[in-house]
Amino acid sequence: MPDLTATPPSLDRYLDETRDARLESYKDFLRIPSISALPEHAPDVRRAAEWLADVLRAAGLEHVAVEETSKHPVVYADWLHADGAPTALIYGHYDVQPVDPLELWTSPPFEPVAVHGRMLARGSADDKGQIHAHAMAAAALLATRGAFPINVRYVFEGAEESSSEGLDEWLAANKERLTADVAIISDTGFFEGNIPSITVSLRGLMYAQVDVVGSAVDLHSGGYGGAVQNPANALAQIIAALKGPDGRIRIPGFYDAVVTLTEDERAAIAELPFDEDAYRRDSRIEGLVGEVGYSTLERRATRPTLDVNGIWGGFQGAGSKTIIPAHAHAKISCRLVSAQDPDDIFEKFRAFVLEIAPPGVKVSVKNLGGGRPSLTPIDHPVTRAAARALESTFGRAPVFTREGGSIPVSASFESILGLPVVLLGFAQPHENAHAPDEWMDLANYEGAIRAIVATFDEMAKPDGGASE
Amino acid sequence: MPDLTATPPSLDRYLDETRDARLESYKDFLRIPSISALPEHAPDVRRAAEWLADVLRAAGLEHVAVEETSKHPVVYADWLHADGAPTALIYGHYDVQPVDPLELWTSPPFEPVAVHGRMLARGSADDKGQIHAHAMAAAALLATRGAFPINVRYVFEGAEESSSEGLDEWLAANKERLTADVAIISDTGFFEGNIPSITVSLRGLMYAQVDVVGSAVDLHSGGYGGAVQNPANALAQIIAALKGPDGRIRIPGFYDAVVTLTEDERAAIAELPFDEDAYRRDSRIEGLVGEVGYSTLERRATRPTLDVNGIWGGFQGAGSKTIIPAHAHAKISCRLVSAQDPDDIFEKFRAFVLEIAPPGVKVSVKNLGGGRPSLTPIDHPVTRAAARALESTFGRAPVFTREGGSIPVSASFESILGLPVVLLGFAQPHENAHAPDEWMDLANYEGAIRAIVATFDEMAKPDGGASE
Repeated sequence: MPDLTATPPSLDRYLDETRDARLESYKDFLRIPSISALPEHAPDVRRAAEWLADVLRAAGLEHVAVEETSKHPVVYADWLHADGAPTALIYGHYDVQPVDPLELWTSPPFEPVAVHGRMLARGSADDKGQIHAHAMAAAALLATRGAFPINVRYVFEGAEESSSEGLDEWLAANKERLTADVAIISDTGFFEGNIPSITVSLRGLMYAQVDVVGSAVDLHSGGYGGAVQNPANALAQIIAALKGPDGRIRIPGFYDAVVTLTEDERAAIAELPFDEDAYRRDSRIEGLVGEVGYSTLERRATRPTLDVNGIWGGFQGAGSKTIIPAHAHAKISCRLVSAQDPDDIFEKFRAFVLEIAPPGVKVSVKNLGGGRPSLTPIDHPVTRAAARALESTFGRAPVFTREGGSIPVSASFESILGLPVVLLGFAQPHENAHAPDEWMDLANYEGAIRAIVATFDEMAKPDGGASE
Repeated sequence: MPDLTATPPSLDRYLDETRDARLESYKDFLRIPSISALPEHAPDVRRAAEWLADVLRAAGLEHVAVEETSKHPVVYADWLHADGAPTALIYGHYDVQPVDPLELWTSPPFEPVAVHGRMLARGSADDKGQIHAHAMAAAALLATRGAFPINVRYVFEGAEESSSEGLDEWLAANKERLTADVAIISDTGFFEGNIPSITVSLRGLMYAQVDVVGSAVDLHSGGYGGAVQNPANALAQIIAALKGPDGRIRIPGFYDAVVTLTEDERAAIAELPFDEDAYRRDSRIEGLVGEVGYSTLERRATRPTLDVNGIWGGFQGAGSKTIIPAHAHAKISCRLVSAQDPDDIFEKFRAFVLEIAPPGVKVSVKNLGGGRPSLTPIDHPVTRAAARALESTFGRAPVFTREGGSIPVSASFESILGLPVVLLGFAQPHENAHAPDEWMDLANYEGAIRAIVATFDEMAKPDGGASE
């Protein structure tokens, strides 16, 4: 970067003048294949942590450290000299999703290219681009003003794409030193049409596996067909009984903790500029179908779900093989809303599956983890500060949206650290976050840096602080 | 083999004296890995055909030929000099099943070993051992008597384990020269307890694949869950609706062509020495469950079935992946009885699946082939001749059994050649026909040779012929 230490320029001028260097730094970050789910990439994950720590140190942040967890390291940094101003704990993750199927990428996933106003690479949007924007905002503030308007703590995780393994323990162990007024998570995105958005709720998750065993070996369907329970038929029966034709989940007590939307909330959702046809067309979805009495947007973000994520058993090759499979399996998950608790829902799911299991097979149900739903109060001072910052940066007031996905750490900040969470994300829609050709709109990336600074400035105003 | 041409010995003495040489020949046959389903073994299938043709020629049979079909060759041979006596068309197959999983074999599948009175190798029972016994019976007859008591035509197939591909066309094209009075199929076995048995019915087969498509790509279960139809859930719903909790298949018209068992037939089945506990225990089956109102033996052999043979869709790896699968698939087959026609049942199956398919997915149904059920009249002269031959050879009158499996060629002999079919098989129960460690009881193998000769002798008696 150019030497800008002599006479601090304005932040805007600084950002204009450092743009090329910043993009090179962004690309360097993207070149590290920090895939947290694949053990062979563990050294790359650590390399990405060290690289990030170096950039935060160079920006002028303090107490920069690569801290161990039971899985991948957390990168911590802070700047705490804004006496009397609120403190934000800023979260993002530097690990990325696997890249399969590799052959569907236009260019190699870890050889970033900036073309047509987009940065194309694994992690460009989810989530390296967003935490790089935070690091660049920090560098810009300290280079041009020598100070932040508020206090900041950064917690950048390396295992978000691996169920945030180890993070809850690390948060609990570091609870005392992580004091803050609010957590700001930058791992979400704008609304359809690339409209600035603040996500005000995320769904939780219950993820289970159902295993059905009928015999020790596959049986000949001639010699045994008709006389034994077929585990694949039995599994189908179980799955079919979990949900009614009305889209309602039939597990007793499943809806107990679900809060009904108010008329105002439903009206706000109905007003969102949602293009249902485009949503359907983009993935060539055969048809939009769901729980009766709710709109598509309501179904995908405000209602709980039950979906088979995978199913398998018996012969899957070409042609025919006349067996009765020895066993059959399904991964089944529920998105959760309101106060639904993943462990409670798992127990109810398990009990119901065992209750409806047909005779002649052994059925077992495993809990593969999950996370609680998360809700940001729309009228929180930091939510309002972020909204003003987005409007001033992008020239349009943000919409307040509910997301169907889950960020388990969001619930952890609430439950472990007792912090309200504001979801301030900058990815554009359809960024292929977990798919080939992930990309980040470079205008969103550049705007993110300015909006982050503006959010801090808004928070520092007398009416914008988060101290409660 | 010893030179026995000078003074023809008795058939018994001949068989005793040639036993060692015969077992070596049997092993040579088993050493050829004639797996018809695997293209890379096509040369081995042909080699087995040539080997078999050489043995039939050496036995003294006539018109021995390796004849082409659209798939693997048929080995043909005959001896037609018993003027006025009936003619039997004898069928078996020289191809074998694949050997996976190889690691579960005690000794390599194509390195036959004879231990503890058993021949252990792929094909030892299904079906090389049985056609080798036929070849050895022919050699013994011609060596000791210089003649057969009846006329014989041998048709040995090389694609039975590949849906008998090409055989029907070959039978139709050779219909004129394949004149006979009866077809004798040696590809079945004895009853539980190794009790001599004549199989009097086989079930037919309808085999289909159901494909359910929901979208062009796997969808994120957060962003789409609740708003789209999940193809795996939809497939489970379809499968669950095909059969009721009473074990009855719900496809309209499915039972139209099923003939109800008579009280006499049910009584005969009830009298069979069937050890239900052993049947269940041998494969560690969790429980025997089936259509209400029928016994296990009735269910597995006299009633039609509907079984999922394989199911797959979405994520099958370790851990969790939160997707809605783009598509899901199942292989589903029905065993058929009485006059159920596989094409008719497929059409009824297809129509019902499409009718019950839930909205929001595209469902298609493919026919993967099948075969008609087959029934031998228990009072046919050749059935009675075979029964007397089994009793004199094995010292016990055979039981008449119904098999749950299918031999599609059996129906072909009936429909294409217009021949009644007698199922005269010699494999012991639990021979691991399609599994690792396939074996043949050597007493059954040796007894088969004698019983085949005795059957021919019985057929030649004035009251035992099959001329109708």
